[in-house]
Amino acid sequence: MLLEKLNWRYATKKFDPARAVPQDKVDLIVEAARLAPTSSGLQPYELFVITNPDVKAKILPIASGQAQVVDASHLLVFAAWDTYTADRINDAFDFVIAERKLDGEPLANWNAYRQRLLTAYVPRDARTNFEHAARQAYIGFGLAIAEAAMLDVDATPMEGFDAEALDALLGLGARGLRSVTILPLGYRQADKDWLVNLKKVRRPKEKFVTEIR
Amino acid sequence: MLLEKLNWRYATKKFDPARAVPQDKVDLIVEAARLAPTSSGLQPYELFVITNPDVKAKILPIASGQAQVVDASHLLVFAAWDTYTADRINDAFDFVIAERKLDGEPLANWNAYRQRLLTAYVPRDARTNFEHAARQAYIGFGLAIAEAAMLDVDATPMEGFDAEALDALLGLGARGLRSVTILPLGYRQADKDWLVNLKKVRRPKEKFVTEIR
Repeated sequence: MLLEKLNWRYATKKFDPARAVPQDKVDLIVEAARLAPTSSGLQPYELFVITNPDVKAKILPIASGQAQVVDASHLLVFAAWDTYTADRINDAFDFVIAERKLDGEPLANWNAYRQRLLTAYVPRDARTNFEHAARQAYIGFGLAIAEAAMLDVDATPMEGFDAEALDALLGLGARGLRSVTILPLGYRQADKDWLVNLKKVRRPKEKFVTEIR
Repeated sequence: MLLEKLNWRYATKKFDPARAVPQDKVDLIVEAARLAPTSSGLQPYELFVITNPDVKAKILPIASGQAQVVDASHLLVFAAWDTYTADRINDAFDFVIAERKLDGEPLANWNAYRQRLLTAYVPRDARTNFEHAARQAYIGFGLAIAEAAMLDVDATPMEGFDAEALDALLGLGARGLRSVTILPLGYRQADKDWLVNLKKVRRPKEKFVTEIR
């Protein structure tokens, strides 16, 4: 089922500007990202869902003029934490304590784990922390792509944009975030899409997988 | 459907060592990763599927003694390209030409795109290239996690291992690869798993998503 959908999906080059994705489907796609696992459960990224036409128009030149960012009805932006801070880690750990009502030994174990993370992450250079956070964002990115396909919504995974310019436009720096990837959501306009009928190409399994038996 | 499965899954702490995942399910999980989209379609990573008990036993101390790596029947290792080289890029582009039988203008466009990538990636420092490749691996990682859940197979996304030691054990350096994450596949042993009955915790939507209307 998922594999059929992964074979159906492709990096849509031309969206139909007249067809919007229903909000309930967008919500499910966002929910897939929210449910994605992340290292230590920190979820070190945020998601932006842009439908404002003026903002999308300003993103067009930032994305090298790729029309998907304006033709798609919804533009998702995945923005990773620029680093790990004690506040961010503590907030996440405290939230788990409250949600799971931890006490006794489970609480002590959880706080010991928190301490190990604080010791390992907080003094580490920001670039290493950001790269780690970015990888987590890509798990959610993958699951959003999967859920879009499950819902027959077209989506184009895109990295070809000026991240610093997008960060400035959206005010991400002040929030300690850096954009890492974007995902327009919409519906393909097949008769104007050069890619839609081309064969999906993936390295054959024997050049992708090694079995160690 | 996918969301239900994402709610069902969790980072399994105790696998039942007596229950192996059927090979056909493992193949489907690997296929989900193989079908995952990647930047420019380069698929800059490889997958290792380890069932050999001796190799798994050697990985146990490399993974801080976390028993999932030996109790799970299959251990997936995601290993990203250590950098982008002209050979790697050319191989990927040539393969697309052969698979799609490109000629004429599509071929010229494709080769122009190849040239832009060669110019941008090959001179870039290896760390930047590796980090970019690692992010792509995490898309496939996410889709493998999703497909495992769809098949009711338990999986534990794990970064807590000594990547250099694992690379040495598997001979990845000589192949220009670096391990980035591992994914044991198996079936939960619920009565021995401290996490199985704890609430799944995710940041609420309002702290995860910003809508720009």
